[in-house]
Amino acid sequence: MKNNVQRELPEDLMKQYNYQPYESTEIGEPVYQKVAPKVKVSTGDDKYSESLAEIVKKTVKDGMTISFHHHFRNGDYVVNKVMRLIIDNGIKDLTIAPSSLTGAMNDILIEAIQKGTVTNITSSGMRGSLGEFVSHGGMENPVIFRSHGGRARAIEEGSIKIDVAFLGVPNADKLGNANGMYGKAVFGSLGYALMDAQYAQQVVLLTDNVVPYPNTPASIKQTQVDYVVKVDAVGDPDKIGSGATRFTKDPKELKIAQSVNEVIVNSPYFKDGFSFQTGSGGAALAVTRYLRQAMLDNQIKASFALGGITKPTTDLLEEGLVGRVMDVQDFDKGAAESMHSNQMHQEIDASWYADPYNKGAMVDQLDVAILSALEIDTHFNVNVMSGSDGVIRGAIGGHQDAANAKLTIISSPLTRGRLATVVPEVTTVVTPGDSIDVLVTEYGIAINPARKDLQEAFKDLPGLPIYTIEELQKKAEKIVGTPAPIEYNDRTVALIEYRDGTIIDSIKEVK
Amino acid sequence: MKNNVQRELPEDLMKQYNYQPYESTEIGEPVYQKVAPKVKVSTGDDKYSESLAEIVKKTVKDGMTISFHHHFRNGDYVVNKVMRLIIDNGIKDLTIAPSSLTGAMNDILIEAIQKGTVTNITSSGMRGSLGEFVSHGGMENPVIFRSHGGRARAIEEGSIKIDVAFLGVPNADKLGNANGMYGKAVFGSLGYALMDAQYAQQVVLLTDNVVPYPNTPASIKQTQVDYVVKVDAVGDPDKIGSGATRFTKDPKELKIAQSVNEVIVNSPYFKDGFSFQTGSGGAALAVTRYLRQAMLDNQIKASFALGGITKPTTDLLEEGLVGRVMDVQDFDKGAAESMHSNQMHQEIDASWYADPYNKGAMVDQLDVAILSALEIDTHFNVNVMSGSDGVIRGAIGGHQDAANAKLTIISSPLTRGRLATVVPEVTTVVTPGDSIDVLVTEYGIAINPARKDLQEAFKDLPGLPIYTIEELQKKAEKIVGTPAPIEYNDRTVALIEYRDGTIIDSIKEVK
Repeated sequence: MKNNVQRELPEDLMKQYNYQPYESTEIGEPVYQKVAPKVKVSTGDDKYSESLAEIVKKTVKDGMTISFHHHFRNGDYVVNKVMRLIIDNGIKDLTIAPSSLTGAMNDILIEAIQKGTVTNITSSGMRGSLGEFVSHGGMENPVIFRSHGGRARAIEEGSIKIDVAFLGVPNADKLGNANGMYGKAVFGSLGYALMDAQYAQQVVLLTDNVVPYPNTPASIKQTQVDYVVKVDAVGDPDKIGSGATRFTKDPKELKIAQSVNEVIVNSPYFKDGFSFQTGSGGAALAVTRYLRQAMLDNQIKASFALGGITKPTTDLLEEGLVGRVMDVQDFDKGAAESMHSNQMHQEIDASWYADPYNKGAMVDQLDVAILSALEIDTHFNVNVMSGSDGVIRGAIGGHQDAANAKLTIISSPLTRGRLATVVPEVTTVVTPGDSIDVLVTEYGIAINPARKDLQEAFKDLPGLPIYTIEELQKKAEKIVGTPAPIEYNDRTVALIEYRDGTIIDSIKEVK
Repeated sequence: MKNNVQRELPEDLMKQYNYQPYESTEIGEPVYQKVAPKVKVSTGDDKYSESLAEIVKKTVKDGMTISFHHHFRNGDYVVNKVMRLIIDNGIKDLTIAPSSLTGAMNDILIEAIQKGTVTNITSSGMRGSLGEFVSHGGMENPVIFRSHGGRARAIEEGSIKIDVAFLGVPNADKLGNANGMYGKAVFGSLGYALMDAQYAQQVVLLTDNVVPYPNTPASIKQTQVDYVVKVDAVGDPDKIGSGATRFTKDPKELKIAQSVNEVIVNSPYFKDGFSFQTGSGGAALAVTRYLRQAMLDNQIKASFALGGITKPTTDLLEEGLVGRVMDVQDFDKGAAESMHSNQMHQEIDASWYADPYNKGAMVDQLDVAILSALEIDTHFNVNVMSGSDGVIRGAIGGHQDAANAKLTIISSPLTRGRLATVVPEVTTVVTPGDSIDVLVTEYGIAINPARKDLQEAFKDLPGLPIYTIEELQKKAEKIVGTPAPIEYNDRTVALIEYRDGTIIDSIKEVK
């Protein structure tokens, strides 16, 4: 069985999990029944506990699906605390459905899998030892990878049915009103966790900062919360900010950022009221800097900036160059602080951000998205999930979702070390080439042949040489050579959903 | 069939509508499945229209349930605009399920009933010509009256299933992000309408103020909205503020307000961190004024003020005497303005405010509630729905819900004109006496005999004479005499739900 990006899919699993192969980036206008949780009615007076052990024992049973959010990133303490108790309680056969996984939780999850506590995982991504473990066949059942918008969809239409959500927050009152903006372990937007709070059957908040009732602003509301548990610490403030939030000084990255900016500024979308998502990482921050100057020079203001937010973006808001910041997660403390001080900085949940199955997501209104790639192939298909050794070491994040923008730019060096980024065929297709418009490398750009308008717009720009993507691929090959093919076993260790819930690719066990 | 407040209920209708008789103010901890709407997936690009006629035609079909909110109160233009089109389209057999009804829409609704367009109504209340019309048998099916919390419950558990919600807003972008705070026809909190926005199958926003995308803060979100319709005007700003928002100068009302304040201040609940709901009306505003002075004198601060909010309450917030204002609706422009300027002023939906079927409503945490009464009887049962002539001329509002407070005070003159307020038996039981603690009149107070602690707390207070409620009733009777009994026909014209969905009383057709 091959799908529309020519990927061979494992028929047995497709059948077993009732999956359809990926067909198109078009979502259409299906009608479907949203789900809702069962509610245990309460006045709220008995929610508060200082014993996480007691609440875990009360809520988690064999075979359940439990969830976490990843807003604490590498500073997360919550998954470790909760999973330690669950493993020690001898619980079996859990599905974990976090918004994503970070290195902070790899050891405990490997232990949980080895002991049979966790038998299924769905996540946006995984990295490090857990990625290695899964890629080498450590789990019996395939991991299901979903984009942030895809997870929101799966929760809203019932494919992910969360029995218990364990949500860490830097503040909460004893009834469960909470936000991500105040306290020690602040992270700003609770965007991903808002899905869990709304849809999980039982919601357990963990906090190290119990505040007087009623706590406002309440991103998570008491009407959604079953238990509030006081713990010593929910996260390490120093590790919450993502590492890659400083301006790059790498001349190659600066060159790429400059070219990305050229592409944006010379596109038909660069006009008053345009919108953009730049993401995080040193190169993205450099793009934001160039874009700021271009906006000043051309007297152009953006209507909104979207996505994972960084301080350089909220600075644009303060400066009046951006009308609104629509924020599903923050990558640094500066961004988190902006959310409570600037009314134009709006917290949005993952559904509003990117769920393709609602009445209109922010990504549907996006003009320009700048995205990264581990690999991109001559069909413009992008891989952000597996290394060129076949091992899982990435995350879909909002990649498939934001690629829905009118102008989707992949910003990537042609090669990284001894590895080509532009390849004949990506190891894993995560985002289909149909949704990618321009590739920007340090050597020049390639434009998706489907975008004749952009071919026209960018021709004859000084300093922005245009190649075909095949030419860029050959150039990369010439630099680093042709790698030996990866050797796989037959077993499938992961399925990659497209944002609409079809399967765009699978990942095999690495030999 | 008699319920627990000794009301004879119409057995045929109880069966037909599958109702249980009222038993108790205790809600318990039932587990139930929440409902969710069907969603027609969209990118949001085709939501905007300038033809209300077209959208009404597209959405409203025979037999549907449609809804409105009443935040525009007597300044509402939305119901008239929408119902005019629906009637003219020849639509039949609609159920209308507004959060409440005001005089602004009486004529068109009577016409809609007479023409068979509307055959069922559920509302918080009705007044004037529509109340007369229904009370005199103008509708075949009984009206179902629900409290604000009861409506939220009915929507969340599926008893009210809204096919199309027509929601007027003072601002919206073309995808449906909207709030009640900016524009011409501002009313502040969208509290009641947020239920419709979340649960209706189709949501149509009407606005006279289309703003650039994306509009924030978004109380209603684009993910919830199917259509945005531009109209010339959604409401009359001058009639949105409720009439009774000025301080009373009536010495009787001032005397009552002073006594209410005495009751609060001498109760065990008047301490730092207490909470209260005062409501609107001249007497309520006077209570707020006295309470302010008592808080200053005793150096006591409240944790939150709840409910329908007025400027005197937001003034307390500004002054630091109240920690938070939790706002489901605003009664004047001052309160509406506070919501966007003060972060401690939190908009809450009707579920968070008062739904007894969730994980904890604000009313469950309320210390002191001051409520009004058309009548109160010697069992402390309260009527806020029908006049002593039996005609419908009131609304439950949050009465049953806020009566859940630890100290529920009914503030009411002993008599009004030639009519007694304290009576042997109320015309209609809306709020059961079990949830009422103290009656305050201009002559003195009566304490529910179940509250021995309050009997003790209030004894020997100068200027606060205590009577039994029977004594107050006799006193009232002595002043105005015994009215002739109301003559009813057999037919039931309305059923009154208690907040948990049981039936607490019914209203018969007046002869």
